[in-house]
Amino acid sequence: MSRRRPVRLGEMTTLEAAEAVRASPLVIIPAGAFEQHGPGMPMATDTIRAEHVAELVALELAGSAVIGPSVPVGVSPHHLAFAGTVTLTTTTLAAVVREYADSLHRHGWRKILVITGHGGNNATLTTVAQDLLTTHPDLQFAWTPLTSLAADVVAGMRVSEVHGHSGEAETAQMLHLASHLVHTERLAPGTTHLGELGPVSRLSLQGGHPALTMRYDRLSPNGVLGDPRNATPEDGRAVVETAVARIVAFTRTWLDA
Amino acid sequence: MSRRRPVRLGEMTTLEAAEAVRASPLVIIPAGAFEQHGPGMPMATDTIRAEHVAELVALELAGSAVIGPSVPVGVSPHHLAFAGTVTLTTTTLAAVVREYADSLHRHGWRKILVITGHGGNNATLTTVAQDLLTTHPDLQFAWTPLTSLAADVVAGMRVSEVHGHSGEAETAQMLHLASHLVHTERLAPGTTHLGELGPVSRLSLQGGHPALTMRYDRLSPNGVLGDPRNATPEDGRAVVETAVARIVAFTRTWLDA
Amino acid sequence: MSRRRPVRLGEMTTLEAAEAVRASPLVIIPAGAFEQHGPGMPMATDTIRAEHVAELVALELAGSAVIGPSVPVGVSPHHLAFAGTVTLTTTTLAAVVREYADSLHRHGWRKILVITGHGGNNATLTTVAQDLLTTHPDLQFAWTPLTSLAADVVAGMRVSEVHGHSGEAETAQMLHLASHLVHTERLAPGTTHLGELGPVSRLSLQGGHPALTMRYDRLSPNGVLGDPRNATPEDGRAVVETAVARIVAFTRTWLDA
Amino acid sequence: MSRRRPVRLGEMTTLEAAEAVRASPLVIIPAGAFEQHGPGMPMATDTIRAEHVAELVALELAGSAVIGPSVPVGVSPHHLAFAGTVTLTTTTLAAVVREYADSLHRHGWRKILVITGHGGNNATLTTVAQDLLTTHPDLQFAWTPLTSLAADVVAGMRVSEVHGHSGEAETAQMLHLASHLVHTERLAPGTTHLGELGPVSRLSLQGGHPALTMRYDRLSPNGVLGDPRNATPEDGRAVVETAVARIVAFTRTWLDA
Amino acid sequence: MSRRRPVRLGEMTTLEAAEAVRASPLVIIPAGAFEQHGPGMPMATDTIRAEHVAELVALELAGSAVIGPSVPVGVSPHHLAFAGTVTLTTTTLAAVVREYADSLHRHGWRKILVITGHGGNNATLTTVAQDLLTTHPDLQFAWTPLTSLAADVVAGMRVSEVHGHSGEAETAQMLHLASHLVHTERLAPGTTHLGELGPVSRLSLQGGHPALTMRYDRLSPNGVLGDPRNATPEDGRAVVETAVARIVAFTRTWLDA
Amino acid sequence: MSRRRPVRLGEMTTLEAAEAVRASPLVIIPAGAFEQHGPGMPMATDTIRAEHVAELVALELAGSAVIGPSVPVGVSPHHLAFAGTVTLTTTTLAAVVREYADSLHRHGWRKILVITGHGGNNATLTTVAQDLLTTHPDLQFAWTPLTSLAADVVAGMRVSEVHGHSGEAETAQMLHLASHLVHTERLAPGTTHLGELGPVSRLSLQGGHPALTMRYDRLSPNGVLGDPRNATPEDGRAVVETAVARIVAFTRTWLDA
Repeated sequence: MSRRRPVRLGEMTTLEAAEAVRASPLVIIPAGAFEQHGPGMPMATDTIRAEHVAELVALELAGSAVIGPSVPVGVSPHHLAFAGTVTLTTTTLAAVVREYADSLHRHGWRKILVITGHGGNNATLTTVAQDLLTTHPDLQFAWTPLTSLAADVVAGMRVSEVHGHSGEAETAQMLHLASHLVHTERLAPGTTHLGELGPVSRLSLQGGHPALTMRYDRLSPNGVLGDPRNATPEDGRAVVETAVARIVAFTRTWLDA
Repeated sequence: MSRRRPVRLGEMTTLEAAEAVRASPLVIIPAGAFEQHGPGMPMATDTIRAEHVAELVALELAGSAVIGPSVPVGVSPHHLAFAGTVTLTTTTLAAVVREYADSLHRHGWRKILVITGHGGNNATLTTVAQDLLTTHPDLQFAWTPLTSLAADVVAGMRVSEVHGHSGEAETAQMLHLASHLVHTERLAPGTTHLGELGPVSRLSLQGGHPALTMRYDRLSPNGVLGDPRNATPEDGRAVVETAVARIVAFTRTWLDA
Repeated sequence: MSRRRPVRLGEMTTLEAAEAVRASPLVIIPAGAFEQHGPGMPMATDTIRAEHVAELVALELAGSAVIGPSVPVGVSPHHLAFAGTVTLTTTTLAAVVREYADSLHRHGWRKILVITGHGGNNATLTTVAQDLLTTHPDLQFAWTPLTSLAADVVAGMRVSEVHGHSGEAETAQMLHLASHLVHTERLAPGTTHLGELGPVSRLSLQGGHPALTMRYDRLSPNGVLGDPRNATPEDGRAVVETAVARIVAFTRTWLDA
Repeated sequence: MSRRRPVRLGEMTTLEAAEAVRASPLVIIPAGAFEQHGPGMPMATDTIRAEHVAELVALELAGSAVIGPSVPVGVSPHHLAFAGTVTLTTTTLAAVVREYADSLHRHGWRKILVITGHGGNNATLTTVAQDLLTTHPDLQFAWTPLTSLAADVVAGMRVSEVHGHSGEAETAQMLHLASHLVHTERLAPGTTHLGELGPVSRLSLQGGHPALTMRYDRLSPNGVLGDPRNATPEDGRAVVETAVARIVAFTRTWLDA
Repeated sequence: MSRRRPVRLGEMTTLEAAEAVRASPLVIIPAGAFEQHGPGMPMATDTIRAEHVAELVALELAGSAVIGPSVPVGVSPHHLAFAGTVTLTTTTLAAVVREYADSLHRHGWRKILVITGHGGNNATLTTVAQDLLTTHPDLQFAWTPLTSLAADVVAGMRVSEVHGHSGEAETAQMLHLASHLVHTERLAPGTTHLGELGPVSRLSLQGGHPALTMRYDRLSPNGVLGDPRNATPEDGRAVVETAVARIVAFTRTWLDA
Repeated sequence: MSRRRPVRLGEMTTLEAAEAVRASPLVIIPAGAFEQHGPGMPMATDTIRAEHVAELVALELAGSAVIGPSVPVGVSPHHLAFAGTVTLTTTTLAAVVREYADSLHRHGWRKILVITGHGGNNATLTTVAQDLLTTHPDLQFAWTPLTSLAADVVAGMRVSEVHGHSGEAETAQMLHLASHLVHTERLAPGTTHLGELGPVSRLSLQGGHPALTMRYDRLSPNGVLGDPRNATPEDGRAVVETAVARIVAFTRTWLDA
């Protein structure tokens, strides 16, 4: 039986992995979260999106990238008031990612890209990148979020004044990528206007700086920002394809260098 | 659209998770590894088996258990000489499991069972259980390996004098659970007799105590212990079903208490 | 001798500090760096700017804020190739800020704002904010950078295609705030056009995502991004005043809530 | 005055230690516990047994092994409800053993054997062995428990259905090795039949997997498993001699390799 | 414009720092505290004194030493009952100092001297010195307190039976170095005789060993030991000059070696 | 058989320990080292002395104190160049002592005294005392060295200009307490005059401040400071008795308070 080499390192044998070290200089790590996504979407929403995008990127790169192990739980203390949320501390997430990177580095890989479907991981990924400069000076470590890569596409969608977590853009992506896990009949608007919030919550949500991190039960009664009922799979496809295209473009330049 | 509540917490919304805290007092955590499994089986072998068994157990328990987030990477420093292996330190794995447990405890769960497909995680899981006695005295934390639960079944299979990692029993389980990921044409015997090894390697493999942990490249040239060519899906089914039955029996007693 | 209560907690006695806990609900922490700033500016550039802005903000708030201890060394591994740079790991900076916050919390303060003059601290400050949600749920912790608060002002200045570290905007602030520490005769352009760089360095500098963190000796021979010769104290004043005004506006809303 | 070189490193001068690095390639570390052993045996029971066995093994090996520093306190959170118990966390025990090993490695030793009289240390010792594979690849680190090495001997003794901590076998060893510390008049049966326990405690005690770690005050009112009144010094001698013989046999093979 | 090279590394550019690595083999780190100093002196008292003395020493050494970044917050848990005190744990202070030292070592410096104005830092500085012996064997790390360097001078001053924190000697130094921060009108005696204290507090204050560390609210109602009203700037000058002279003498020998 | 309650907790059963919590409010922890003591004295010298003194103190206190578990390995990186030395990092020693203290605190003890035979532990013990102020505010934690308690006695002995580690006073104590472990025929002078040393080593040995910690192989070719041939058991007895008396006096006051 002859088979194409899989794109996921987890599905490779060590023989294929050894070949991949030579042929595929980039390893992509999908990082997600295990946190509430309102009444209509599952805990694994961010991991699912990250894994899908990682696969689309890797396929596009046609052999020059492989997908490493996922990070299925991220930094989500702000969602702990909602049942089901599981979180790591920032220290532990950093250790996990650093040890993934260290293992891959031992095999010979020198380029790692983490694709995170969860914004709560962004800061920790940056701290890992900073610390690796000293401990692994010959390793190049990059990371990217998803939705914000396609902020222009989202801006063109029908979005509420307040939108974000479990809102229009995230729901659209799930309708495109994993609609069987979306309870469309339960999708319900969360906080959609700043006016619904008290002044401190508004400060936290207004974006920009100063940045004030708050628990999501202070920001939205049902854990949702925006109105996911307005999400469409077409919009989701547009967000995903744009994100994939931009990651691929970045990566091609990186690999060609 | 009406759907049955899923058994995986990752596929639940927070509404279903809130219900599960009340209705399903047990959370099962599948823990695996990301490590070489010889020329014929994939890196994710242990995670795949743990997740499958977790699902079979949870289904058998019919609503009294849910499946929490997986641990896709375990403690595998002994396999780092083989390409593709990714490992956590024991400290980091302990932190990950402890923080999963802490989050679930915050939501109200008081019984957690980790099913590990990878023996390299056993010791760390025990240390987590010990430390939780002090930090979370009202939490009951149990863990179980897989294959050794069915040691009697394995003993009745056609196994080599030396068998174990990526050998007859593990391969049989994969042929039963995920045969599409097994390269049957590449399955090849590894170390099958103690006589093939030098004396120190023999000490490491003979089981019992004193226990001497060694790198697998010292124990087997291709990373395999045993002859996976003798594995059959029927044997795999027997191992899996026995393991599931014993975990279910344990858990029923536990939940009834 | 009668004196006005100082705005810096470090200059207060414990009697005044006790009064400040009641009267001044906000503590501002200036965070900087100890890192190269090219041939013309000193190691302490970021700390100096942060402390100046903190003072201006506190004075503007007229008694409702005090200034806590500074963080004189930040996260600067990317500058270690340039003599004089001192860095903390992200773990240690996080511990320092967390322990400042914990001490202030013990005295009764519930609002803390870190003003960082160094972008390399941003990620760590966010991780601190996340972890505090769990450990100190009644503490509100915000942080802000400086220059990027006035990005619109900088955009209106005479800046190079590439500008940033030790460039036009940072130098302008120093000319306004601490000109005695600027060697104007040594100010020299660093990297000013993307075209001067190789492709990987360009990826690192282009902003947005994916984000690729690199050592500054790979980005600029003299450690400078932009042309600091174009900096003017007037521009510096505009940047500073805008940043101060925006922080004050944020803080007033926060304190009134 | 001429004296034979002592077998304990602690009793050697640095001159003898330097000679031992060359002549005695193995260092034995006795590890114990400081925990309740019921109404008749002392806190130091496990340390005393480990130190005695270590000495017997070292003497048997006639110069090829020396005894390093003891670990007098182990991992005993499950006994904290009984007065006098002192415990380390698993993290701290691991650090202690790792630093002993690192120091010995610096002097040139490459083989270390920990003999633990306390089963609560087993998991931590395994995690140390795993982590040392990466940090000290040329170090061989083994560990062994005591009583379970002679499980066949114990099975031939007069033991209760439930037996274990402070029970027949452990008491017998103490009667043989340190009878002056055993209050024979106070020896009293603890839990001797599973039927005395509730269902969860039974699960914890039944051995095998899943493994459920519980506090000992939930398993036995007086902290004893089994009936120590049935212990005899002769049985103790048999257990000790069997354990010593098996450790010696293992070690000879190891040293000859 | 031509300027003398500054003595503070924080005021140097990287060009001057590079020259200092060659020309100035010693880096001085001023370490202080952020803690109550009674009704008359500010939180930053210890940092201010350390920085002043560091500068006087560096000037005296005429180019062979530079001043590195300060440590503005030290180990002050014993003062937390007094408003305004901010403390680090000993672990975090050790990490900060170790990372300062590691960064300076990377640039080529091999001699570091920490001058601490706060006795609560002494023990942690010693632990750093001990750990650096192993991690940075070619680095020479020394530290010194201030006031106790001039114990003979203090003994000749007009001091109370009990004197120490915020007392005669410390106040005198501040009157000499930073009188604008001393509220002379508020200076008030604290505990001045052992007889004012209960027996345990006396044990803590009597000096020598056994050493019993206690919270300062148990030792003095106003946080002061001694009678600062007796402090004079002349005495302060004598203490400072003696301390400076002794540090300079030590350092000259060290640098000449 | 009726026996007096032992003074060592390690020799007590849990029944006696429970009684001791009520009757004996003080727990003494002997802390030592495992380090070279020159050609004539054993690695365990400091632990042996600490344990002996602890026992003498406890006996003198006649029931109001018990002896807890020893710390047999301390902080000895400065002796690692001499074969046989085993060291903990300061972090690990602190964790060990803190966890001993925490366990004892759980049982109800509120007074702990560490007697350290090794000066290298002093700083770490102080850091533990400081951190316990915050984490265990109702625990009183004291520590004491040995030889320096009797500095006046030592000054009256026949000591070299340079004396200290493994020198006259330490050897004298061992001749008094454990003469069977002293190789009197091998006792040899180490460094006895400052003039034998280079200038940096002299700085390290001169005592006082600045303090410069150095490896002992830089201070003495045979690891000895002083001339142990001049040690007598009578002097040893005087040192020990003085130290015991002073610790007892301190403790009586403490317990009566």
